[in-house]
Amino acid sequence: MEKKILLADCPDQKGLISKITNICYKHQLNISNNTEFVDRTHNRFFMRTELDGIFNDETLLADLDSALPTGSHRKLVSASRKRIVILVTKEAHCLGDILMKNYYGGLDVEIAAVVGNYDNLAELAEKFDVPYHTVSHVGITREEHEEKIIETVSAYQPDYVILAKYMRILTPNFVAAFENKIINIHHSFLPAFIGAQPYKQAFERGVKIIGATAHYVTNNLDEGPIILQDVIHVDHKYSAEDMARSGKDVEKSVLSKALRLVLEERVFIYENRTVVF
Amino acid sequence: MEKKILLADCPDQKGLISKITNICYKHQLNISNNTEFVDRTHNRFFMRTELDGIFNDETLLADLDSALPTGSHRKLVSASRKRIVILVTKEAHCLGDILMKNYYGGLDVEIAAVVGNYDNLAELAEKFDVPYHTVSHVGITREEHEEKIIETVSAYQPDYVILAKYMRILTPNFVAAFENKIINIHHSFLPAFIGAQPYKQAFERGVKIIGATAHYVTNNLDEGPIILQDVIHVDHKYSAEDMARSGKDVEKSVLSKALRLVLEERVFIYENRTVVF
Amino acid sequence: MEKKILLADCPDQKGLISKITNICYKHQLNISNNTEFVDRTHNRFFMRTELDGIFNDETLLADLDSALPTGSHRKLVSASRKRIVILVTKEAHCLGDILMKNYYGGLDVEIAAVVGNYDNLAELAEKFDVPYHTVSHVGITREEHEEKIIETVSAYQPDYVILAKYMRILTPNFVAAFENKIINIHHSFLPAFIGAQPYKQAFERGVKIIGATAHYVTNNLDEGPIILQDVIHVDHKYSAEDMARSGKDVEKSVLSKALRLVLEERVFIYENRTVVF
Amino acid sequence: MEKKILLADCPDQKGLISKITNICYKHQLNISNNTEFVDRTHNRFFMRTELDGIFNDETLLADLDSALPTGSHRKLVSASRKRIVILVTKEAHCLGDILMKNYYGGLDVEIAAVVGNYDNLAELAEKFDVPYHTVSHVGITREEHEEKIIETVSAYQPDYVILAKYMRILTPNFVAAFENKIINIHHSFLPAFIGAQPYKQAFERGVKIIGATAHYVTNNLDEGPIILQDVIHVDHKYSAEDMARSGKDVEKSVLSKALRLVLEERVFIYENRTVVF
Repeated sequence: MEKKILLADCPDQKGLISKITNICYKHQLNISNNTEFVDRTHNRFFMRTELDGIFNDETLLADLDSALPTGSHRKLVSASRKRIVILVTKEAHCLGDILMKNYYGGLDVEIAAVVGNYDNLAELAEKFDVPYHTVSHVGITREEHEEKIIETVSAYQPDYVILAKYMRILTPNFVAAFENKIINIHHSFLPAFIGAQPYKQAFERGVKIIGATAHYVTNNLDEGPIILQDVIHVDHKYSAEDMARSGKDVEKSVLSKALRLVLEERVFIYENRTVVF
Repeated sequence: MEKKILLADCPDQKGLISKITNICYKHQLNISNNTEFVDRTHNRFFMRTELDGIFNDETLLADLDSALPTGSHRKLVSASRKRIVILVTKEAHCLGDILMKNYYGGLDVEIAAVVGNYDNLAELAEKFDVPYHTVSHVGITREEHEEKIIETVSAYQPDYVILAKYMRILTPNFVAAFENKIINIHHSFLPAFIGAQPYKQAFERGVKIIGATAHYVTNNLDEGPIILQDVIHVDHKYSAEDMARSGKDVEKSVLSKALRLVLEERVFIYENRTVVF
Repeated sequence: MEKKILLADCPDQKGLISKITNICYKHQLNISNNTEFVDRTHNRFFMRTELDGIFNDETLLADLDSALPTGSHRKLVSASRKRIVILVTKEAHCLGDILMKNYYGGLDVEIAAVVGNYDNLAELAEKFDVPYHTVSHVGITREEHEEKIIETVSAYQPDYVILAKYMRILTPNFVAAFENKIINIHHSFLPAFIGAQPYKQAFERGVKIIGATAHYVTNNLDEGPIILQDVIHVDHKYSAEDMARSGKDVEKSVLSKALRLVLEERVFIYENRTVVF
Repeated sequence: MEKKILLADCPDQKGLISKITNICYKHQLNISNNTEFVDRTHNRFFMRTELDGIFNDETLLADLDSALPTGSHRKLVSASRKRIVILVTKEAHCLGDILMKNYYGGLDVEIAAVVGNYDNLAELAEKFDVPYHTVSHVGITREEHEEKIIETVSAYQPDYVILAKYMRILTPNFVAAFENKIINIHHSFLPAFIGAQPYKQAFERGVKIIGATAHYVTNNLDEGPIILQDVIHVDHKYSAEDMARSGKDVEKSVLSKALRLVLEERVFIYENRTVVF
């Protein structure tokens, strides 16, 4: 007995649930959890099905391909533990939260390595027995630096790459190397305060809320599909530094929750938006 | 072409979604929206399906009854506009919010009548052309008063009875007359501060949040199945009166949202808990 | 015995609280409530003091002027009921919330008139016995229309002008006519989604929160000092229309709360930011 | 130049702010931050003043004692770093959050030791170079165990004792040993779900929010003065275990924030309630 997750999305049409669940039934797979959604704006159907049983992936997918309309995507993924690599710069809170939850409960993932452009978080990764690689950007070009990062990360063949406050801008080259696999935490409620120093921007604008956004990374800075967002209330007593400090709790909480959703294969990407089951 | 909603819950077993959607498909009904959930604690399956087509209710339900296991509940309800009667005492905010939303958009319901034990909200109901009945409790027993209320409400044959800050305790007689049809808004985050004057209790306990709870009414005061809850933050500057005033926005918002969920047939009751799709 | 509120802000220096409270004490005024704040970024002191007693405004202010440093602002305002004019376009919810709260409790303000560029909310204003003026923009220039609005509003000499979903852009002429007296509710968490159709923008960006912002109106569209903001969580199931409908509860709640703060003279404006006591 | 915090509370009367700030001025102390509040229900005045300068504590307090009415409390505390001891049982998240924040920024406190009734968190404390003491409750009476705990904790002379998910009930003996110095995190929105297994209780009651409460510990279980509370929304998909897992983020965030408030001397206790500046 194995556990797998079927993810399918396609143009909406009559009878899709019936067709898909019948195929699962025919394959003697038990549906332990099922969620569907129809995006009426784009007339698209999304379905996520947790299955238990003995799988013949090839014939199951072939049956699905016969049944589903043109323009469908479907994948059958194992529900087993995923592998991630975490990228960091200098801030410890997001990395620490993931390490703590993975060690003491709350997340269940293989953290293959932490890669940073400084060495100051090596100690934290080592506290939790996770390999740490310092790949300094000093004295080399952005392209050279990124190549080294890609090489270091790729060696671990991660399912996902987590930017846990990695403060460097990525090139299309990097994004292409891990397409739809890079999750970033941005320290503002996007689309407000794109780019550098969002808390400074927030202070100057005089906002009464600050927040954080977890999103997939695409080639447009801070414009990828949003997975999760949250905010906290602030007031005039908060300096930009106070905002930054208070915001950390939101950042780490949003990133950890988004990571969990991604690891459980709950997130579809479509038209630069996400469907999160 | 008609639109109906199928609600089914039963002991969980393999193939339920497939069976139910097949029956719908066989009846040439289109599933425009579908949600399922399995409560693992009670091993119970819940499914809500929005259907479009031409219905033969009798054969559809017969087919479902053949397919579903012992211990199933199922109902097929029209997706058309529901009829409610609202009970009030003296406070205007919840009634006003429902009236405003029904008149200007946000709710779509037939408000058959408002019934109050005082006459001071008659003017408000009349502003929105809704009949108002004053059924005073003065000079009669609780039982006599309730009989009059039941009589007045029953005359309208409401789908639901909404207690929009109706401040009198109901007897089992009343609850039985409108079983699983009475929605109450309680001005605390239940189960805290059951009973009278929750804001006074909240002030005395020195809480830092206050809230509201919309729930179905059962025979146990403030202990019925919870539909929705929300809170706001307060601090030492709030007197009990400030809490009561600020709480009104939460109360009306929670009641309106819960009412909308109920009217759209999104709420299952099971084991004194709700499944809200 | 009268009740007044003293608002003072000035460059910070040693002994300010002592100086100001001594002056109040010397004038035999009782401080029933006092709040101060020092903005360290701008090195500026803010103080709001509720005073009871018999006032000689002229000598009190003269004493303060002697005591306070260069660059100070101070005003002494009556704590009595303020007068407002409300501007609307077609949406009823913010207007309705203010009318309801003023009539049944929660706000205490003289609503001198409602002015709209359509006539469809006349009925709502009249339900609550508030004069309504339709000033149509049809067939005249923006400037001509605004002149008419200014004239209509000015006739009531309002303390504040509330834009309760008034959907037309104001010219500097209008802003100058009611400087620091115009409060707007914008249906997004600013600075995100400035301008028209923020919910449509929010849907297209795929955000997971939507919100509302109450702010003073300056010459830069949606860029005035923010008084209050709040958000609610949304997910992929929300269409742009669902966002708009759900957002209304946040809009009306944020505007009503901000209005209350403004009416109680709790808001300082400084450097395009607010200090809210 | 030193930095101290003056905390005073007394029956309200005219001129208190003036009197106190004059005394500070006379002592050539600069007020860098000042907050007052009058609790109208109990007619009591609270004031917290951050002072910079050269202090003669004895004469300053003597001057204050002369000026303040009967029934006053006042204390002058150093703004320097406090010392805490943390008590734990088996759960790591609250302890981990405090250790992380203290090490990497967000809290600034001397964590003198962690004391647990199991040894499984020793490793975590040691990761951050904090001494850990296992004081097992096995094979001894509750009283004997508590005596050992008191002895171990007392040896460090902590300013505060933090119960970071310490799951044992304290006797009056323990509470007396650290009066008004014990901070607990309870994993529910008190006063709901007092006592053991609040998430199990929450699941069974079918609530739609879960939360956490940081409070001072008194002799009545979970009934001490509340410092801070927060909640998150849950739905029918949450099992009791899911609630427990999700609740951890709220617990650790609420405890860390409350601890920060306490360490900055921002919390007054009065009539089993708190005033939090």
